[in-house]
Amino acid sequence: MNIKSKTVQELEVICADIREEILRVVSKNGGHLSSTLGATELIVAMHKVFDSGSDPFIFDVSHQAYAHKLLTDRWEEFDTLRQFDGMCGYTKPSESEHDYFVAGHSSTSISLGVGAAKAIALKNEQDSRIPVVMIGDGSMTAGMVYEALNELGDRKYPMVIILNDNEMSIAKPIGAISRMLSSAMAGSFYQKFKHHTENFVDNFGEGAHYIAKKMEESLKLITPGIMFEEMGIDYIGPIDGHNLESLIDILQKAKKLGKPVIVHAQTIKGKGYQIAEGQEEKWHGVGPFDLDSGDSSKKSSSKSATQIYTEALLHLAKNNEKIVGATAAMPSGTGLTQLIDAYPDRFWDVAIAEQHAVTSMSALAKEGFKPFCTIYSTFLQRGVDQVIHDTCLMDLPVVFALDRAGIVGEDGETHQGVFDISFLRAIPNMTLFAPRDEKSFHQAMAFAAEYEHPCSLRYPRGSFKECNLAESSPFELGKSQLLKTANSDTLFIGYGNGVGRAYETSLLLDKEVTILDLRFVKPLDEEMLFDMAKKHTKWYVFSDSSKMGGVGSAILEFFARNKITNINLTSFEYEDEFITHGNTLKVEESLGLLPSQLVQKID
Amino acid sequence: MNIKSKTVQELEVICADIREEILRVVSKNGGHLSSTLGATELIVAMHKVFDSGSDPFIFDVSHQAYAHKLLTDRWEEFDTLRQFDGMCGYTKPSESEHDYFVAGHSSTSISLGVGAAKAIALKNEQDSRIPVVMIGDGSMTAGMVYEALNELGDRKYPMVIILNDNEMSIAKPIGAISRMLSSAMAGSFYQKFKHHTENFVDNFGEGAHYIAKKMEESLKLITPGIMFEEMGIDYIGPIDGHNLESLIDILQKAKKLGKPVIVHAQTIKGKGYQIAEGQEEKWHGVGPFDLDSGDSSKKSSSKSATQIYTEALLHLAKNNEKIVGATAAMPSGTGLTQLIDAYPDRFWDVAIAEQHAVTSMSALAKEGFKPFCTIYSTFLQRGVDQVIHDTCLMDLPVVFALDRAGIVGEDGETHQGVFDISFLRAIPNMTLFAPRDEKSFHQAMAFAAEYEHPCSLRYPRGSFKECNLAESSPFELGKSQLLKTANSDTLFIGYGNGVGRAYETSLLLDKEVTILDLRFVKPLDEEMLFDMAKKHTKWYVFSDSSKMGGVGSAILEFFARNKITNINLTSFEYEDEFITHGNTLKVEESLGLLPSQLVQKID
Repeated sequence: MNIKSKTVQELEVICADIREEILRVVSKNGGHLSSTLGATELIVAMHKVFDSGSDPFIFDVSHQAYAHKLLTDRWEEFDTLRQFDGMCGYTKPSESEHDYFVAGHSSTSISLGVGAAKAIALKNEQDSRIPVVMIGDGSMTAGMVYEALNELGDRKYPMVIILNDNEMSIAKPIGAISRMLSSAMAGSFYQKFKHHTENFVDNFGEGAHYIAKKMEESLKLITPGIMFEEMGIDYIGPIDGHNLESLIDILQKAKKLGKPVIVHAQTIKGKGYQIAEGQEEKWHGVGPFDLDSGDSSKKSSSKSATQIYTEALLHLAKNNEKIVGATAAMPSGTGLTQLIDAYPDRFWDVAIAEQHAVTSMSALAKEGFKPFCTIYSTFLQRGVDQVIHDTCLMDLPVVFALDRAGIVGEDGETHQGVFDISFLRAIPNMTLFAPRDEKSFHQAMAFAAEYEHPCSLRYPRGSFKECNLAESSPFELGKSQLLKTANSDTLFIGYGNGVGRAYETSLLLDKEVTILDLRFVKPLDEEMLFDMAKKHTKWYVFSDSSKMGGVGSAILEFFARNKITNINLTSFEYEDEFITHGNTLKVEESLGLLPSQLVQKID
Repeated sequence: MNIKSKTVQELEVICADIREEILRVVSKNGGHLSSTLGATELIVAMHKVFDSGSDPFIFDVSHQAYAHKLLTDRWEEFDTLRQFDGMCGYTKPSESEHDYFVAGHSSTSISLGVGAAKAIALKNEQDSRIPVVMIGDGSMTAGMVYEALNELGDRKYPMVIILNDNEMSIAKPIGAISRMLSSAMAGSFYQKFKHHTENFVDNFGEGAHYIAKKMEESLKLITPGIMFEEMGIDYIGPIDGHNLESLIDILQKAKKLGKPVIVHAQTIKGKGYQIAEGQEEKWHGVGPFDLDSGDSSKKSSSKSATQIYTEALLHLAKNNEKIVGATAAMPSGTGLTQLIDAYPDRFWDVAIAEQHAVTSMSALAKEGFKPFCTIYSTFLQRGVDQVIHDTCLMDLPVVFALDRAGIVGEDGETHQGVFDISFLRAIPNMTLFAPRDEKSFHQAMAFAAEYEHPCSLRYPRGSFKECNLAESSPFELGKSQLLKTANSDTLFIGYGNGVGRAYETSLLLDKEVTILDLRFVKPLDEEMLFDMAKKHTKWYVFSDSSKMGGVGSAILEFFARNKITNINLTSFEYEDEFITHGNTLKVEESLGLLPSQLVQKID
C-alpha cells in the first residue's frame, strides 16, 4: 500500500482498518495483540516519512510489527498469521523484502541499526538511506542496547530510534530505566511546565513561543532525555504516539538531523480495543478469543508444565526459606508471578536481563541461598557465558529451570527451545535432568532443591505427553528409571517430554520394546546403560532437543569411552535446521516426529 | 595484614611496598601490570574502610586485584603468580576466603553486588555487611552492567561501587560512555569551576563553603554523574584515586549512605612505574620484562597464530573492499590494530560488547559486506544468542575468527577457549573449520572470505604446533586433507592445532598410522570418513576442545547416522572439568595431553 500521498485524515482511516484486521485475525489465530495495537500510528507514520525497502526498518522483537506487514502487500496472507505454512508472527526477510531482519528476541535493534548505518556510510548512501529503529521501553532493559548506544553515541551515525513507550513491556515495567522514562509522563514537573508554557504562549501570542521553547529546552536537563544526551544521542520527547500529525512532523525533522536521535513516543498498549486498553501483561500474547467479550475461545484441558512448575516451587518455597528465584521479564509465562506475589522478598522479576539474572542468582547461591533461575530455553542463550563463568566455575547450586524446551509452536524459529542441552552439557560441574510428567516434575524439583551444584531441568510448552507406564520414583543423581522391560533387541530411551513420545510410539509397534526414562543426560546412568547394552542392540533416543551434541551424542560418547561398538543408535532428536512456526503437532509432523511416522523408522 | 589501625602515612608506605612487590613478581612471571598499579590506593582504602571476608569485595575482571591478594595473607605465595600450581592471576575463592568470586570476564561485578545485597537483606545483615564493587571504566561498556544498574537503581540496595577510571581500559577508551566519564576530567568546565570555588573558599573562609558546595552540587547536573543519578544511583566524583586520605574519607561517607552509590575515582594506569605510567594498552598484560629498561625478557621465536591472522586479513582486505571487521576491546590481542590503522572506516573496536559486535556485524553482512568478527573463543560465550538469532537464522556470511582457542596458559580457567565447538556446532547454517599452520591459515582465510554463509575458524594462543607432513592444499567446503597414509588399523584425526599434536604423537609411536587433517568439523568430510572407516578400526581424535559435543562427538554422530559400529574411537579432547592456569605445556602435561603421554594410550 503506498501511503506517501495520503492525508493525515486518510491515514487515520487506514489505522482504523489496520486495527480492525489485526483484531479479526488475532482473535481467530491468537498472537501478540496489545503492543501491535499500540504501535499502529507509529508504524503508519514511519511508512509515511521513510522508505520501507530502502531505509532499513528495524523492529525490536518485531511482535509489534503487524501493521508493517499489512502495509507491505501482505493484507491477504495476514489471515494465516502464525499458522503452519502461514505468515510468521515476527518480521522475516524470506517473507518480504520489507522485513529487514529476523527478530524475536529483544533488544537487538539498535545494534542492527549501527551495522546498517556503517554499511550506508561505506556505500555513500547517507543522502538517500537512514536506519529507522522501533524499540519498546521493555527492550531498553537488556544490556546489549547500551553496548549499541555506546558506539552509536560516539560515532554519531544518522539514525532515527522510535522509543515506543507504553510504560509496560510484556509484564509490569521493571527497573530504574523504566521509572526514569515514565518520570516525564503524566503529573511530572515537566508536564506541568509544558502546560504553563502553553498557557503562556496562548496568552501572549506566538511571539512568546521562542522564549517558552528555550525554557523547555533547558528543562530537558531534568527529563529522561538527559541520559541519552549524555551518551551523545539527541532526544525528542515525550510525544503523543497516537497523534499522527505531530508524529509525522517530528519524524520528518528527525530524519533531517544527520545524527542519531531518539524520538520518545508515549502509546497506550491495546489502543483501539477497549477491553485490552492499558492492560499490562494479559493482552500481550493471546490465544484465540471472542472479540465481543474478550473471553478465551479454547480452554486447555490438561495442566501445563509451567503450572506444575509453579505448584512445585510454591510447595518447596513454603518449606524452605532459602529458596529464591528470578525471571527475566516473563513472570506470567514462567509461572513465577505466584511466587513473586507470595514471597516478594525472595522472588524477583529482573527485567529482560538474562545475563544479570544468572550472575546475580549465582551470588545468592554463594551466600547460601538456593536460587531457581527460571528462563525459557531459548532465552538462556543470552546467559551462556554467565552460566559458565559465574555459576559453574564457582560450582554454585543454582537451578536453571528451562521452560519452553522443545518446539514452542506459533512463535516459531526464534523461540524454539532446542539448543540448551548442546550448550549446557559441555559445561563442567553442570547436571542436566528432565521430568516426564506431573509426578516426576515434583520429584525432580525436590531433587533440585537439595542438590548442591549447578543443575538444569527442562520442560515443554503446554502439557507433557502422556505416559501410562510405571509410576515415577524419586529422583536420584544420575539415575534413570526403567519403565518397561521386554525381551527384545530394541530399547527406547526417552528424555523429558520425549518419554511420552517413546511410549506413544511403542504403542504403535508390533513388537514389545524396553522403555527407559533416562532422566539425567549428565551425568548418565552408566550402570543402567551398561546393563541395557548387554540386552539390546537397537537403541532409539526420543528427546525434544537438537541432535548435534544432544542426548544421543551423550550416549554415543558413553559407547566410545567404554569401547561398546555393537549397538545401532538412532536419535529422533531435531535435525540440524531451524524449525518453523505453527501448531506444534503440525510442525512435528513436518519433521516426521509423530509416533505414527516414527514407527516407520524402527527396524 | 591488618591495616585498620594504620595511619594514612603508614598506608602510603604499604602502597609503595605493594607496588614494589607487584613489579618484582610481574617482571619475573608476567601478568597484568598497569591496572593493578593504578588501583593500589583504591584497594588499600577499601581494606581500611570495609571488612574483607565479611563485606563482599567484588573485583570486576579482577586482574587489578593483586594488591588485594597481598593484603590478605598471600604475600609469600605471590611469588608463584600465574604459574602452574601457583597463585591465580584473578580472584579465586578456593585460594582465599577473601576472594568472593571468580572473575576473569568483565562486567559481572555489579550483578554480583546485587545478588549479594539481596542475600544481605534476606539475612538481616544490612547493619553489618555491604557489598563493595570495584569496576574499571572499560568494563562499563558491556551491557550486563546496565542490566544490573537497572535493578539496583530501582531497588536501591546499599552498595558502594568504586569506578576506577583510568581513561583507558585494555585498549583505547571506546564509546560514548567513556567519553562521558572523562568529560569531567582535566580541563573541563567542571574542573575549572572546582578550582574557582576552592579559591573562593580560600579567600572568603569556611563560611563560603556551603555556598560553594551548593553551586558545585547544582553543577553535577552536567557532570557524568547525571546518568547514574537518572538511574537512581548516587554519584560522587570525580575524585583523585591516588589520594588515600580523601579516598578513605569519601568511602567512609559512602558506606553510611544506606543506598547505592558510585564513587568515581580517577587513577593513572601504571602509577608508580614510570615506564608504564599513562601508557594505554602496552603495559596492560605483559610477559616477563626487565624492570630497569622495561624490555621484554624473552622474544618468541616463531610467528603467532594471531600474527598470521593479521597478515592474512590485511592481504584479503587490501583486495576486497567489502571486507570489514570488529573486535570487542581486544585490538592488540586479536591483531586487529593493524587493520583498524590501515582501514579505519572498515574495522572497528566496538568496546567490551560481544553481543553488539555479533549483531552489528550481521547487519553489515545483510548489506553485502563480509565481516570478520574477531573474538577470543572464551569471549564469544557472551554472544551465543546473537550468533544463533542474528547471524545464523538469517544465514548471513559473518566470519567468526576465534583467537585463543584451546588452553590459553597463564590466564587460566576463566579464559580457556574450550567450549566453542560444543556451542557453535549445534547451530544450523554454521560451518566450522580450523587451520593447522601458517599456510593453511591463509587458505582457510581465503575460503572464509568467499564463503556465503556463517562460518567460524579457530586458532590457538601462541604458535601452531609443527607438522612437517604434506603441504596444505586450498580449503574446500567440508573437505579434509589426508596427510599421511599407512597400512595400519590406526587413524589419527587432527583438527586445527590438534593436527600438530597428532603428528608429534605419531613420531613417538612404533607403528605407522594414517593421519587426517579433518579441517571441517561441520560439515564433515563424509566421503573421506567412509573411506577411512573401511581401512581403520582404531580412531584417535586430537583437538584443543571440550570432549562433550566436540570433534569426537561429531564423528560418533556420523557413525550412528550411518550405522558404522565396528570402530573404536578415542578422543584426546579435554575432559569435563575446568582447566587451571600456568604454562601451557605444564597444563597439558597435567591433563596427560603431551605426545609422550598420549602415545601410552594408543593401542
